[in-house]
Amino acid sequence: MRKISESTVRRLSLYLRFLEQSQGQGLTTISSGELARRGGTTSAQVRKDLSFFGSFGKRGLGYSVPELATQIRDILGLDRSYRVVLVGAGRIGGALAQYEGFRRRGFDITAIYDCDPRKIGTRWSGLLVRDVRKLQADLKKEPIDIAIVATPAEAAQEVVNQLVAGGVGAILNFAPVAIDAPAAVIVKHVNMAAELETLSYALANR
Amino acid sequence: MRKISESTVRRLSLYLRFLEQSQGQGLTTISSGELARRGGTTSAQVRKDLSFFGSFGKRGLGYSVPELATQIRDILGLDRSYRVVLVGAGRIGGALAQYEGFRRRGFDITAIYDCDPRKIGTRWSGLLVRDVRKLQADLKKEPIDIAIVATPAEAAQEVVNQLVAGGVGAILNFAPVAIDAPAAVIVKHVNMAAELETLSYALANR
Repeated sequence: MRKISESTVRRLSLYLRFLEQSQGQGLTTISSGELARRGGTTSAQVRKDLSFFGSFGKRGLGYSVPELATQIRDILGLDRSYRVVLVGAGRIGGALAQYEGFRRRGFDITAIYDCDPRKIGTRWSGLLVRDVRKLQADLKKEPIDIAIVATPAEAAQEVVNQLVAGGVGAILNFAPVAIDAPAAVIVKHVNMAAELETLSYALANR
Repeated sequence: MRKISESTVRRLSLYLRFLEQSQGQGLTTISSGELARRGGTTSAQVRKDLSFFGSFGKRGLGYSVPELATQIRDILGLDRSYRVVLVGAGRIGGALAQYEGFRRRGFDITAIYDCDPRKIGTRWSGLLVRDVRKLQADLKKEPIDIAIVATPAEAAQEVVNQLVAGGVGAILNFAPVAIDAPAAVIVKHVNMAAELETLSYALANR
């Protein structure tokens, strides 16, 4: 299979959400035009995205909603669940811990860590906030797939070092700083300002 | 100027953050290799991204940090400030309202709206939470550039209708639902689960 670009992965993720909403409404087929309209793109782009993995709608009938949803889930690796830890029980961390979309997609936040003694021992969305100094030892006992780092900039690298030593496979970094990790660990940097910057770019260049 | 893809805009946004950090550390030049390492990409990609707008580093010297930062700011439309309103004073809204990165980039959140009488009249990060029923009237008096919609799914479209009627230019939609707006209004959908899905895709396909 050809490697899919991040933009395509993002669009597949959106299509999947719309397919699931359509399924909830009892729809069994959907056209590329409808997927395009809801995903803010073109029919041609939808057909191109879906042809990457050999899915073709039937002319005049469109795509089968449940089949396409299953195919996209497989492509995105969502045919299994992932164990996730969240490090940093601040505002971003709090919003993420309670984001219901994660669990629905099979991303199970199994633990939250912080260094603040006032937070350690409290419960967030039913999860105990643990002492970040126990992170590495805990990871040895309970391996995880993905870590979300939502610490202040100055704490992020040390947390990442512990996550790497603990065998984490992928890191989603919300801390506003570049982090170093071995090439085998997948790192993705989330920059909330970048979301607004795609808008300012579009406003400035329309 | 050629139209730049969203992936490129996102990388430019990351480069800009690293350039500003480098500037803060007193560095005057930076190599494509260093930008690539910090941005999780390749030197070739960095050179390609920057060549879009005619910026070329000097062999052996790299790019001038302040010049490149200014160029990227211009490209991203960050040479001005933007008036932003936030609708929805829930968990995501709360995290966004207090995100210091927005103001630093010239995105000034000027007002927060909610429909909950217990929230209306309280202050969030120094901003009064206003009654969403006054949104459209307020927009007539105080035009804004960008709106962030962080409401529940079922409230999003009605809020968007009011924002459009009030003349907003661009909408960042955090509500987990597709929204309709006229083509002249730029709409960007943010799906927090998609960030994790780019990781599950990478884990499943490495």
